[in-house]
Parts: sequence; C-alpha cells; structure tokens
Amino acid sequence: MADRPVKELGMKTPLEAARKPSLNKIAKTGICGTIDTISPGIPPGSDTATLSLLGYDALKVYSGRGALEAVGSDIDVLPGDICFRCNFATVDENFTILDRRAGRIANEDASKLVESLKKIKPTDSSVKIILKNTVQHRVALVLRGPKLSTAVSDSDPEKVGVKVLEIKPSDRRSESRRTVNILGELLRKFHEVLKEHPVNKGRVKCKLPPANIILCRGAGTIPNIKALPEIYDIDAACVSAISLIRGVCKVAGMNIIDVKGATGTPQTNYMAKARAAVQALKTNDFVLLHVKAPDVASHDGNAKQKVEIIERIDRMLGYILSNVNSDETYLAVTADHTTSSATRDHEGDPVPVAITGPYVRRDDVEEFGERACARGGLNRIRGKDLMPTLMNLLGKTKKFGA
Amino acid sequence: MADRPVKELGMKTPLEAARKPSLNKIAKTGICGTIDTISPGIPPGSDTATLSLLGYDALKVYSGRGALEAVGSDIDVLPGDICFRCNFATVDENFTILDRRAGRIANEDASKLVESLKKIKPTDSSVKIILKNTVQHRVALVLRGPKLSTAVSDSDPEKVGVKVLEIKPSDRRSESRRTVNILGELLRKFHEVLKEHPVNKGRVKCKLPPANIILCRGAGTIPNIKALPEIYDIDAACVSAISLIRGVCKVAGMNIIDVKGATGTPQTNYMAKARAAVQALKTNDFVLLHVKAPDVASHDGNAKQKVEIIERIDRMLGYILSNVNSDETYLAVTADHTTSSATRDHEGDPVPVAITGPYVRRDDVEEFGERACARGGLNRIRGKDLMPTLMNLLGKTKKFGA
Repeated sequence: MADRPVKELGMKTPLEAARKPSLNKIAKTGICGTIDTISPGIPPGSDTATLSLLGYDALKVYSGRGALEAVGSDIDVLPGDICFRCNFATVDENFTILDRRAGRIANEDASKLVESLKKIKPTDSSVKIILKNTVQHRVALVLRGPKLSTAVSDSDPEKVGVKVLEIKPSDRRSESRRTVNILGELLRKFHEVLKEHPVNKGRVKCKLPPANIILCRGAGTIPNIKALPEIYDIDAACVSAISLIRGVCKVAGMNIIDVKGATGTPQTNYMAKARAAVQALKTNDFVLLHVKAPDVASHDGNAKQKVEIIERIDRMLGYILSNVNSDETYLAVTADHTTSSATRDHEGDPVPVAITGPYVRRDDVEEFGERACARGGLNRIRGKDLMPTLMNLLGKTKKFGA
Repeated sequence: MADRPVKELGMKTPLEAARKPSLNKIAKTGICGTIDTISPGIPPGSDTATLSLLGYDALKVYSGRGALEAVGSDIDVLPGDICFRCNFATVDENFTILDRRAGRIANEDASKLVESLKKIKPTDSSVKIILKNTVQHRVALVLRGPKLSTAVSDSDPEKVGVKVLEIKPSDRRSESRRTVNILGELLRKFHEVLKEHPVNKGRVKCKLPPANIILCRGAGTIPNIKALPEIYDIDAACVSAISLIRGVCKVAGMNIIDVKGATGTPQTNYMAKARAAVQALKTNDFVLLHVKAPDVASHDGNAKQKVEIIERIDRMLGYILSNVNSDETYLAVTADHTTSSATRDHEGDPVPVAITGPYVRRDDVEEFGERACARGGLNRIRGKDLMPTLMNLLGKTKKFGA
C-alpha cells in the first residue's frame, strides 16, 4: 500500500491521492507513525516483512521462502525438512531452458504429472519425498530424513536460453553433499518420467510446451520460532489468499481461514475477507487481514489502479469499523513494505501505521498517509516492535524485570 | 556542524544562526530528520561516526584510530598489521615529558628524523616495521609479522610533566607479550638514535625542543569490513583533507581524491572541494564530501567563526546544487557529530540530516537546523541506516526475503 510520490498523481502517493474516509478515521482517532519492517533502506520481502510485523526478528529467524510457501500450500512441514520452490519448465534435449513455466501449465495437467512423480523414490530409503503442485507451474518439494542440509545451490537459473544449473553443495559438510546426491538423483528421475509422459506428449501435439523438467531453488527449512499463542497466550488467525503469507502465519501458530472469493488479485472479494475477519475476531484475540492487491498494482506500475484498490480497501475497513465493538477492539493498519509504482519493486522506505482503540495516546494526525503518519506519536519504529505494542494494549505482554 | 544552543547567538545554534539559502533549499525540497551516528547520548569520534554514516556498525567493526589514520596517510596497511598513532615528543633525561609535540616540529625536520629511524630493525627479523611522518609531530608506526596483538598499552600518557609510560600487555596471550617486547625494543632504539641525531642537536642550539622520543598510543588493526563497491555494486569516492577520514573511506573501498588547497582548516578551499566532488560524480555513484572546518571552530569555542564557516559551506553547496543534474542526483547533508562550541568537545546530541532528489517523500521542513530537522519525515535514525536509505534511493540495495 505504501509508495513514493508519483508524478501522475501530482507528487502524491497513491495512499495520499485516494479517497479514504475509514483509513483517515483510524488515523484521526488513533496514534500514528512509520515502520521500517526490516530496517531503514532495506527492501523487505513479503515473508520477512510479515514475520517482522508478527513480532519476530526476521534478520535472525528467516530461513528461506521455500519452507514458508510449502507450509502455506498445506504441506505439513516439520522442523528439519528441506523445502524447495520448484517450477515445471520446458527444456530441449541439451537441457537449455525454453520456458521456465512450461507455458504456465494448467493445474489439471500439473496435477497429473505430479501424481506420476510421486511414485519416484530415492535410492536412499531413509529419505522421504513430499511433492505438491500449487498453482499452475508451481510445485513444492520437501525432503524429509536424517542428515540433510539447506546448503544446496539452485538448479533454476531463473532465465531462459541458458542451461539448467548443476546442483552443488554450498559448504563442505557431508550432509550437503548427501542432499545434493539425493536431490540430483530425484531430478534426473523426474526428467526421465516427464519426457515420456502422455500428458506431455499431448501438450506437444497441441503445440504447448511440455513440462519436461522440474527446476528447484531456495532450499530452506521452517524458521525455528515460538508460536504466537505460546508467546502471548492468545488465539490468532489469518485471512490471506497468498501461500507465502499463509505459511508465515501457520508457522506462527495462527489459524488459517479460507475465504471464498479471496484470490490475492485486485479482483479479490474484499467484503468477504472483511466478514471473515470480523467473524474470526469472535473466537480469536488477534486477526491478521492481508490484502495483496495494492502490491500487485505497484508491480504492474499502475498507480491509478492502486488508488482504486486503496479505496476498495477503505470501504472494506468501513465495514470492519461498523461491525466490531470499538470499546474492546484495537484496529491497526499498516503495510508490509513500500512498493514503488515507478520502480515496480519493493523499496526500503518506511510504511505508515495507525492504531486505534481504547485509551491509545491519540495524536493530532488527521490523515492516513506515508507523510502524515510520519508526524505521529509512534514516531518511527521497527516492524518487530508493532506486535508487542499491540499485545501490550491487549494486556498480553509480560513485564520484563520487577 | 551540529551544535547546542549558544548564548552569544541568542540561544540559536550556529547552524540556526547562519544565513544558509542552499542548506534551506535542500531541506525544503527534501526529507529531513536527525541522526544518532552511534546512539543517543554517545559522543562519536570522527572515525566511528564516518564508519557509521557509510553504513557500517561501528560498535562491531571499529578497531582503533591508529590503523585508519595510517591508511589515510597512504601507508599500505594489510589485515593483521598492528598500527600505532605516534608523536615526536621531548623528554628530559628521566623520561619526563616536556613537550608532547616536540614544539610542533616542522615536517622537514620530522622527515629527516624518520629517515634515520627507518634503518632500525627489531632483533626478531620476522617482524617488519613501517614508519611514516604525516603532519608535524605526527607519525604512523606499523608492525607487520606473525603472532602480533593489539592488546598493548600506550607509552603516551597524553599529558606533560609526567613520565613516559611503560608499555604493557593488556591480556595474557603470548602474542601480546611478544608485541610489547618488540615495540619496547624499537622505542628504546628510536630514543638512542634520536637523542644523538644532528637535527636534534641543531634544534637545541636554536632553543627548539628536541624530538628525542617517539610516544605511541592506540594500537589497532584495520576493520574487517566489506568494501562499499562490493556491498552495493557502486563506485564511490571521497573528498577530504583529513587522514583519518581518508583512511575510513579507503578501508571502505572508496577512491580518495586529492584536492589542491583542501587543508582541513577553516581556510580550506571550499570551492575547489565542491568542483572536485562534482567532477567525481561523473565517474562515481557516490561521493562523500567532508569539511572539517566547523569542527575546528567548535573545538576552539569560536561559535561566530563556526557561523561564518557554515555560510561558506552553504555557498559551496550552492555551487553543487547548480552543477549537478537534480533529476538523477540525490544530495544528503549531515554532520558526523555534534561538537559543542561551549564544551569544545564532541557531544552525544543527534545531528540534522536532509536528503533531496527524485521522488523522496518531501516533508514540510523549511530550514536546515538541528531543531527544524527533528520535525522531519525521516524522524530519528541511526548513522548506519543512512547509507542503506541512500543506496535504496539509487536502487542499489538488495531485497531481504522474497
């Protein structure tokens, strides 16, 4: 949601340009500030930023995207499991990549291919394989077993026209060498099965790129963190359509709520998410409601669409304001990072935050915006400090000292 | 440049009292804030402050002034070299210090003495000695060899009328004992040569204090840091007349630019430095332009001179503003520390900062001053956060997370 000043909006940010009575009401009745979700100038990923906003020190606990996305795809990842983000891709007979997404293969085809791949086992029977296709070409791969390591390089060069990379250990431990051997064997076996698979023969006939290889990257484990219910003695829930965010929240011990029509796109069902969040508040102390859409518009460089999305979010917040008991509910609004609609990328500028609810030290900020909030009473805080601030308002933080 | 309110300036700071249209323009068109170069209340040294402003965690990487000054004096210091800051001084026959600077001995005399001292070798031939006189009485001494240590106390008591201190190991490691033995032997041999040296005999005849001893302090190594070009993939340059600052910048992998007339004094050639900086920007992504003069005036307790110096700096900035392309250049102005012209020392108050350039979140601060900037959109940040903030504006920071 946060951005830099945009030329076509008269050097306002999309948030500043939007009509946003509910966001402004939250700012006006609350205490405002800015947040560096990681630290000043560092562009956060959505995973590290969300970990931080949930109170964790991402610089210490983050252990890669692969595992969080696998968890978010409803794979039951255990501590020690080595997770990879994989793609179905298309290569020629020399292993040169022709299409990194196998023509964004349909879920149906991908499911059939994964069903066949599930039958493949590594020679080393102590290692178990979990494979799951999520959306289109995206596949999560998990290795479970003794003496495995995340110190394994990627086979995915992340561009086309070049060869598939050889997987190598990135340190000298025998665990890393062993992981490379097991993964390498698997990927070769996958390729053998895929290149002869009827689904791919059908695709070639229809002039579609065959999904004849699996590319891997981002070896990771789930972060070793205490769950929010354990830290604060709360029940917590998450409303998000994005696997990565759902994964972070699951690892944080939150209840993941599925919402029909929540898509992670600008066309998501905002009101359905709002209703789900209000409902979840009846049985949870803390609910995280995440909307991906402003980030999508920013990555597309579409500042005007971003303004419209913020206005839809504002109406969603209007519903929430009208449907929660303001005498006993705190509402905090923020973003996980700045995404510039000019650079179309995550940036290191801080994000605005406003917290409203009983007895907060209301300041004189009257508008929810990047610059208005910078004059607020919270000043400039780090992402990991937001959750303790909120939990303290709920009476859920423990005294440090006596 | 930063100061506290000064009585003779009507309780304005020198920065607030100065006429400074260019500084104000930078503040007005930019985003402002304050910086604790180390942390609130801690008076920074120029070395630790500059390390911080270049993005390093000085509390972790700082390893003494000696090595930085040696590097800044164009000695080719290697990792592991033990560097000392030394002075030519005058002692009587009982080693009582009569003059810590040997009458601020002229460079010419000092050079001749150092030439003789260079012939001295330690008994232990595995250790090499590098000796260089910089300005007046100042000498850099470097020990290079195996099994040396920085855990060595100073021989310089930093006052007159007391005896030269005996050098002692400050921990129990054999390396420290060994270093003490080698250094002690050297300093004795230096004294033997110096007391009989024709230059000193000449000085005594002219009633000048003989430079008959070398005093040592501040054993240090170069900090183990990644260079800026490696961290941010940039070319960086430094315009400064001060060895210590040049040393920090050199260790940070920056190109050191020599400017004729740049002296590190209030009489420095401000415009020559500005021209050099503008020129350097043509082949570098980042240029640090450092002016020592305001600090000199503060140490002299001369607030009025400090105001004049700030006004000269303002004119220098006027040249820069007129000679860089504002559509593609960011300009950040700050100080490395507060120096109080009342206490005549570095103080722990934060310093003001303003950053102007394309698409910064311009705030409503209209003046560049300690108090005006404290109301700005950057709020209060740490020194080490400035560089990532600037590099992010240049698109040079890497995303943390995915």
